[in-house]
Amino acid sequence: MKIAYGEALQNITKKEGGPFGAVIVKDNKVIARAHNQVLLRGDPTAHAEVMAIRKACKKLKTVHLEGCDLYATSKPCPMCKGAIQWSNIKTVYFSGGYDETAQMDFGDREFDEDFQKTEDGWRQIDRECFGKIGNAFADMEEHIHY
Amino acid sequence: MKIAYGEALQNITKKEGGPFGAVIVKDNKVIARAHNQVLLRGDPTAHAEVMAIRKACKKLKTVHLEGCDLYATSKPCPMCKGAIQWSNIKTVYFSGGYDETAQMDFGDREFDEDFQKTEDGWRQIDRECFGKIGNAFADMEEHIHY
Repeated sequence: MKIAYGEALQNITKKEGGPFGAVIVKDNKVIARAHNQVLLRGDPTAHAEVMAIRKACKKLKTVHLEGCDLYATSKPCPMCKGAIQWSNIKTVYFSGGYDETAQMDFGDREFDEDFQKTEDGWRQIDRECFGKIGNAFADMEEHIHY
Repeated sequence: MKIAYGEALQNITKKEGGPFGAVIVKDNKVIARAHNQVLLRGDPTAHAEVMAIRKACKKLKTVHLEGCDLYATSKPCPMCKGAIQWSNIKTVYFSGGYDETAQMDFGDREFDEDFQKTEDGWRQIDRECFGKIGNAFADMEEHIHY
């Protein structure tokens, strides 16, 4: 957590994004460390957790981070929670909660509360379109392992 | 949706990732088109929707995509839903549902169902650590606008 803290503090001066850091650890070894780079990269998905997951996957040459733990300076937002799910990280340690990030005017708590409501603006259309993709996918001789 | 479909089909042969495509449209103009590149990039966050959001932000030089609509070949997963929230996209059109992607052995429905349960493996520790970050953030003379 101390390393994640150091990453977060970098953004107080560097201003590459919000003051958030994340570290991925496996077998007591630091695999990846990252801080929020939303501003630097102009990428709203470049949260510290997502950046750390990307780095760890590159380092370990896999998209499955089983056995890795994530340390984050604050509770991961819904997007990061999804990234944590896809990368198979089961254990997460975080320092600040949504109340604390809300006090700093970050939207994590609000986004978490509104998460399901978000789908109010979603519509299912052209369903047959995906049916065709499914058929093409099934037609492949050898299936890809994702 | 036809363009998103074309993007998805590319992965049937290219195998850069799952057979999913996404397109971002603003004022009837295509701003960004992308397909899943999880395998190509070795990045579990490189879903079509995330890739399209990254491209659109780069093109429009902003992390706020208000007024943009997203077309996706299947219902965005929880991670992509979070990315959609952060980028302020309100309207999403999708073709396939979670049932259809589940038939193709992709985990979107399962991940959506298990989303809250994911936090069972999360622990809040070293809370004072984030307190210090908050103080440092508050101490800055000029606040950063994220």
